[in-house]
Amino acid sequence: MARSIDLAVIPGDGIGPEVVGEGLKVLTAALPGDVKLETTAYDLGARRWHATGETLPDSELERLKAHDAILLGAIGDPSVPSGVLERGLLLRLRFAFDHYVNLRPSRLFPNTTTPLAGSPEIDFVVVREGTEGPYVGNGGSMRTGTPAEVATEVSINTAYGVERVVRDAFERAAARPAGKLTLVHKNNVLVHAGHLWSNTVARVAEEYPGVATDYLHVDAATIFLVTQPQRFDVIVTDNLFGDILTDLAAAITGGIGLAASGNINPTGTFPSMFEPVHGSAPDIAGTGKADPTATVLSVALLLRHLGHEAEATRIEEAVTADLAAREAGSPRTTAEIGDALAARVAG
Amino acid sequence: MARSIDLAVIPGDGIGPEVVGEGLKVLTAALPGDVKLETTAYDLGARRWHATGETLPDSELERLKAHDAILLGAIGDPSVPSGVLERGLLLRLRFAFDHYVNLRPSRLFPNTTTPLAGSPEIDFVVVREGTEGPYVGNGGSMRTGTPAEVATEVSINTAYGVERVVRDAFERAAARPAGKLTLVHKNNVLVHAGHLWSNTVARVAEEYPGVATDYLHVDAATIFLVTQPQRFDVIVTDNLFGDILTDLAAAITGGIGLAASGNINPTGTFPSMFEPVHGSAPDIAGTGKADPTATVLSVALLLRHLGHEAEATRIEEAVTADLAAREAGSPRTTAEIGDALAARVAG
Ligand SMILES: CC(C)[C@H](C(=O)O)[C@@H](O)C(=O)O
Ligand SMILES: CC(C)[C@H](C(=O)O)[C@@H](O)C(=O)O
Repeated sequence: MARSIDLAVIPGDGIGPEVVGEGLKVLTAALPGDVKLETTAYDLGARRWHATGETLPDSELERLKAHDAILLGAIGDPSVPSGVLERGLLLRLRFAFDHYVNLRPSRLFPNTTTPLAGSPEIDFVVVREGTEGPYVGNGGSMRTGTPAEVATEVSINTAYGVERVVRDAFERAAARPAGKLTLVHKNNVLVHAGHLWSNTVARVAEEYPGVATDYLHVDAATIFLVTQPQRFDVIVTDNLFGDILTDLAAAITGGIGLAASGNINPTGTFPSMFEPVHGSAPDIAGTGKADPTATVLSVALLLRHLGHEAEATRIEEAVTADLAAREAGSPRTTAEIGDALAARVAG
Repeated sequence: MARSIDLAVIPGDGIGPEVVGEGLKVLTAALPGDVKLETTAYDLGARRWHATGETLPDSELERLKAHDAILLGAIGDPSVPSGVLERGLLLRLRFAFDHYVNLRPSRLFPNTTTPLAGSPEIDFVVVREGTEGPYVGNGGSMRTGTPAEVATEVSINTAYGVERVVRDAFERAAARPAGKLTLVHKNNVLVHAGHLWSNTVARVAEEYPGVATDYLHVDAATIFLVTQPQRFDVIVTDNLFGDILTDLAAAITGGIGLAASGNINPTGTFPSMFEPVHGSAPDIAGTGKADPTATVLSVALLLRHLGHEAEATRIEEAVTADLAAREAGSPRTTAEIGDALAARVAG
């Protein structure tokens, strides 16, 4: 357990700075008095791109490397062409820092509205691969803009990359009461990548006799997420399927205002990065309407990653209590929610 | 409007033969007395593969070409390695017959259970591209089975292929009261394919000033499908995203027991193929538990495609009336549902 935390903060675009502010408030409240917190803010995102044309200069990447962890708000703005900041900043960080475990827990908190009838019990975690698949940026186009254009996107999957994330998922499944791991892919169509994933899970499963495994095609998985979410415990899946499933998972557990994520480099070679699943929501930026809870829950994942298990749990319990006490029909501002959570954590 | 229908029937695996039987029953009941229906059954699927090692011999493909349309039940069995029948038979048909419009309507029928609270109004149609994208089978693996394995899947997208399906979707949107078209892709990550899709929609949109267009990333689209399905009218999307979205769409509209689809070659060069979205469900094959309604609704799409609009509508109205009259808690057999629908259509 670290006695000091050297944290890089990337507030980013839209509501990013607001939710990050509340996240830091709760982080400060949660830390024991003898743990020193140092934060360094990085000006990255749409503003910087407009001003300098830079998304993530090598020098900044170098500086970021030195921190214990990164807290990121949100990236993206309609004034920047789609893909520029996503690929040049967010995905660049995930790839450069080898964040091969993209961890996204899904829990239906008490007193939380779900679009699903009957409020089923939901408590699973998605282990999304973060450095391979169709996200590698290995595509191109020829005769671009003509009627003869061809555009490709290549999904690259390696035994190295698949096995390490599958092992991580097995470890997590083994540590949970239900001990169940579901591989989600589309191995009846994407047969090469799919078989690599299926064979890897089958092989590693032999080392985890206590973990029950099963397989679902990604299309079928979306059905079960809305009809029988209780069936899931740990899901392991590729980068793109994980992206899709975790937004759906967020939607059924109260919305992306509550969905936390960690981009984790389990080896510790590079800093891990924690961010809410939601985007920059420019339409509500500055209105105080953003819910900082997803960022606060991401801070809990950050603390757990750095060995502060008790503090992480305290934050999660504070969120649970806060949601349970929430009064219907009286919306609170971003800062009010952050204050309430900080007070509960400190209390 | 054809005065005779020369139909190829591929019952396939699992519950396929059962649901196809009911589909043909309703088709026969719906056809005017002066329209001649001729059917030819094709023995394709798991049984044949086990017996002969064949999925779809060239000679059968040649024979299939001569029909006016194809009705398919379901393909796939656990005794056959994943991908063999899907790629070798189902996808081979879609690609060989250039089924570039994969049409999947989603409607929440009266008295139908949806996992969504409050039973929102749902009535949209997904136009899924059927001949390109990650489905092209353009992947491979090297050092297979070793720790150094690399497996790729290539998504191929052409201006030719994207434009023709986008045009089809605009035509359908223009013919609907709401007149709205949503492109779903992931153009912030899959930038090359994504930009081809976005640019094509933007360009074709100029010819359809009456159609409102918008764009959603595929992850966000899954959120809206469960929180605000009313926002959708016509969705156009690529092969893989369409696969995922239409299973989710089926789940929120009463399940895949009701989801119909058409694999359409709008030029008429090759026969179009109609099939329920569901799979072969080997676990309930032969038990009489399969719901043939999805196949019956696929028959309606088939009739509409062949110009029998009135008969198609009569079948859809029969399904609506049948579902509305359905009694909770008294399950009917496959044949009972088929009989009830045939009686309504004939009456
Ligand atoms: C913004 C985008 C690049 C990103 C992704 O696709 O991974 C986001 O959707 C997420 O899930 O974190
Ligand atoms: C069986 C499979 C190949 C197929 C697909 O992925 O297209 C199915 O899921 C579908 O949606 O028709």
